[in-house]
Amino acid sequence: MEASKVLDDMRKLFAADRVAADAPTRTTYAADLWPLAQIWKLGGEYSRYRSACVVWPEDRGDVERAVAWCHQERVPLVPVGALSGVCGGAVPREGGVQLDVKRMRRVLEVDRTVQEIEVDPGWNGLLLEERLQRLGLTLGHFPSSIACSTVGGWVATRSAGQYSSRYGKIEDMVRGLEVVTPGQGTIRTGVLGGAGPHDPWNHVFTGSEGTLGVITRIRLRVHPAPTAMDFHGFGFRSPLDGLAAMQRILQSRLRPAVLRLYDPFDSVLVGFHRATDDGRDVAAAAATHPDPWIARALSLVSGELEDRCLVLLLRRPELINRVAQWLPVPSLLVFGDEGSEEEVQRTLEAASAIARDHGGKDLGPGPGRAWHRNRYGVSYKQSRIFQRGAFVDTMEVATTWEQVHRLYRRVVEALSPLVFIMAHFSHAYPEGCSIYFTFVGYRRRAADLERLYLRAWRQGLDAVTSLGGTVSHHHGVGLHKMGAMHREQPGGAAVFRALKAVLDPRGIMNPGKLWHEGEG
Amino acid sequence: MEASKVLDDMRKLFAADRVAADAPTRTTYAADLWPLAQIWKLGGEYSRYRSACVVWPEDRGDVERAVAWCHQERVPLVPVGALSGVCGGAVPREGGVQLDVKRMRRVLEVDRTVQEIEVDPGWNGLLLEERLQRLGLTLGHFPSSIACSTVGGWVATRSAGQYSSRYGKIEDMVRGLEVVTPGQGTIRTGVLGGAGPHDPWNHVFTGSEGTLGVITRIRLRVHPAPTAMDFHGFGFRSPLDGLAAMQRILQSRLRPAVLRLYDPFDSVLVGFHRATDDGRDVAAAAATHPDPWIARALSLVSGELEDRCLVLLLRRPELINRVAQWLPVPSLLVFGDEGSEEEVQRTLEAASAIARDHGGKDLGPGPGRAWHRNRYGVSYKQSRIFQRGAFVDTMEVATTWEQVHRLYRRVVEALSPLVFIMAHFSHAYPEGCSIYFTFVGYRRRAADLERLYLRAWRQGLDAVTSLGGTVSHHHGVGLHKMGAMHREQPGGAAVFRALKAVLDPRGIMNPGKLWHEGEG
Repeated sequence: MEASKVLDDMRKLFAADRVAADAPTRTTYAADLWPLAQIWKLGGEYSRYRSACVVWPEDRGDVERAVAWCHQERVPLVPVGALSGVCGGAVPREGGVQLDVKRMRRVLEVDRTVQEIEVDPGWNGLLLEERLQRLGLTLGHFPSSIACSTVGGWVATRSAGQYSSRYGKIEDMVRGLEVVTPGQGTIRTGVLGGAGPHDPWNHVFTGSEGTLGVITRIRLRVHPAPTAMDFHGFGFRSPLDGLAAMQRILQSRLRPAVLRLYDPFDSVLVGFHRATDDGRDVAAAAATHPDPWIARALSLVSGELEDRCLVLLLRRPELINRVAQWLPVPSLLVFGDEGSEEEVQRTLEAASAIARDHGGKDLGPGPGRAWHRNRYGVSYKQSRIFQRGAFVDTMEVATTWEQVHRLYRRVVEALSPLVFIMAHFSHAYPEGCSIYFTFVGYRRRAADLERLYLRAWRQGLDAVTSLGGTVSHHHGVGLHKMGAMHREQPGGAAVFRALKAVLDPRGIMNPGKLWHEGEG
Repeated sequence: MEASKVLDDMRKLFAADRVAADAPTRTTYAADLWPLAQIWKLGGEYSRYRSACVVWPEDRGDVERAVAWCHQERVPLVPVGALSGVCGGAVPREGGVQLDVKRMRRVLEVDRTVQEIEVDPGWNGLLLEERLQRLGLTLGHFPSSIACSTVGGWVATRSAGQYSSRYGKIEDMVRGLEVVTPGQGTIRTGVLGGAGPHDPWNHVFTGSEGTLGVITRIRLRVHPAPTAMDFHGFGFRSPLDGLAAMQRILQSRLRPAVLRLYDPFDSVLVGFHRATDDGRDVAAAAATHPDPWIARALSLVSGELEDRCLVLLLRRPELINRVAQWLPVPSLLVFGDEGSEEEVQRTLEAASAIARDHGGKDLGPGPGRAWHRNRYGVSYKQSRIFQRGAFVDTMEVATTWEQVHRLYRRVVEALSPLVFIMAHFSHAYPEGCSIYFTFVGYRRRAADLERLYLRAWRQGLDAVTSLGGTVSHHHGVGLHKMGAMHREQPGGAAVFRALKAVLDPRGIMNPGKLWHEGEG
């Protein structure tokens, strides 16, 4: 259908101030924070894919009308939240209508008896958490994007917060969903307990990234707000020792909210934060750091490195990567917990004993507290790198303990010739943990940068799937990891197809994403 | 296809000692422990439904051959384990082949690094747990059927063990599955973490009761074996006070392995066990109990009541139910934990403080220890009741804390005119708990008994769904609760149909079960 016809019909269905099709809006909505879309912009291409219009529903009735119309007219429908996803999940690949749920943020029902809340999907994450804290509660979900993401987006992408070792990932918190589907109308999922296979529907819609329906209401488990929080840090001779300590902590039934182990370069950054309690940023420190290599590396990450140096350095990423391995710093492990004063103290003491037992050098509460102060900062420091014509991206994969270090080494080896790379290990569970790689790449021409970007990702994810790791811990799949999903789970596409046939028989929901075929 | 042809072909595919079609075998396999099937037997009907033959595969290859043949010939295939299910899930409703996996019990791979095991589905539960304990590990799964059930059966039915508050239900333990499906061949599910909607496949097959494929390998989380265990009991003026204490214990982040609250009559039974450390059974005590009403009630449950009295009493269930409400006994709450000495002590102390705070009278460790001694006994005391021409059954439903007591009252009111009824509250979680009703009914003629049975269940489950409770916490659905599943989750059937279309397109896997339609 013609874009103009889509717009005309939407204007019949919704008030004028709730439909927009002007160029600035459509360009803004042409991409989320997927770095590849930023690379397209570097090449002057501001909207490779654009929708016909953006629509802002205010309640379930609005969503049902939009879904019914798109289903009837076979027009693609892409639900979006705060557009802070990093995998292209909200990109309107086949045009159609983008349904922005951010105006759906009226409802917050608090059920203290069962410790659950029910919320509209458009709630901003930070505002919700602040409201809960005033009620003496916490959701316990703190993604670094918390200030620029929505609850609906968290559920749609299987998000994890920084305290997931204690509170679980978002899929562990979801107790029920209301989803508007084209094929089966409005579905409500979730009850306590266990009859047959209906319980999994919570899990099927969580992480479905808008491909099965529009999430219009979310029921989540909450907890009493903590009364205490503290941290402890240890330095290890190598990441291997730190990983052994992490594993033992988790397998001793301890669940510290935060548990993060940094490789040497990433340790420099965190150690740096520790040293700058006055809140100076990375760039300011880079200018004054006594070690020239660390200063340059800090500049690189902060994006403050002058263009000529950046070019020189990033054209030889093997060199920086080799230097990073030699940095005279220990691998930093920080852990922290929140809860009652007594609980926090008990957890930190027990975890510290294990860390000491594995040769950790006690660094006190400083590094962890510094991490906590800067915990949401990292996501906002990347734009300067793009401004300089380079890209930075993060790859958050996961695997079981026996594979963690091997996977880390294999990815670093695969990417070292291409990009500058560092990593930390976090989101730890009894069976394994996530590895969070950060990498920076540069080419002068945008077309070459795109090729480098795709090549780095392809080689990185191949290294992950070759060892049986999972290609996404909490960023989701989107447009970005479809091929890797097929390699990781070749059988999944058939089941996805079956769900689509029933829930979205005409294939209008966020088409060309997630398990979409032909991308293997 | 003719039963004789099915048998002929199975004999071509498998060795003679791995196929049986003799009358005793087929009659034995005609039913699991579903009480309705026992009622059929009381009426002289020993096999309302029979399979053409029973086949014993020994490995995945055998299962694949059987599944492929049944798929090709459109012959029903019903996977069975130890036949201790209580909902008719293993009843061969449309004939065909019953695939008994009990010979598949060779593999036990222990992965200490990630604290997981991988096992064949035919492992007997108790043997597996004993083997793990010798290795210093525990699965933490202790259903009362542990001695007469298989790991495959646990996964297929979404089983819960008595320590589920600490270790979770079986679906919380499943880390991966291998499933042979007619439509998609052999599928392996499960990885750590969270890319998109592939993670839910563990949940889709767990609880699928043989309708989607045959589970041939199971990966489960295990824990270090506990070094200590203890119990504490409290008496409450009413179940309401006990429920308030239970809720607060769970919502204070305490996870005692065991937490059970008995209504007055059920308390008499447990209190009785406490008084008979010498191991006398219920029947022996009934004969000597000083209170004649309690004595008679005990006799009723033990099945030792002489026929004339049973008839008199069970024809007037309202009367017994009213007496049970007046019993001069407190509602008993027992809780216990296992783990390290220090952990157990800490949990029991914190939970005891809460119980005292809610007016509980301290009864010391006795009642809990008595429960622990008799914890697997209850399942084996029911046959005497059937021998007397009555039935006994249990209905394990679940709901959220705000509904628990209302649901309990409504079910008791609905069933009081029909059957003698008692209940306890267990399997507690932060958001709610399970209610486990036990009821006994009698009619002289088997046809009338069947009518009474079906009427009691219909009224009981209607009371549950009218308050939004779930109709099964851990016994599964089988033939028995299909109608109630449709009332509880009217949208689920469509999704089930979609999964069947892909995984079992010819509908051969355990047909007529679970979400089968036309039973609403």
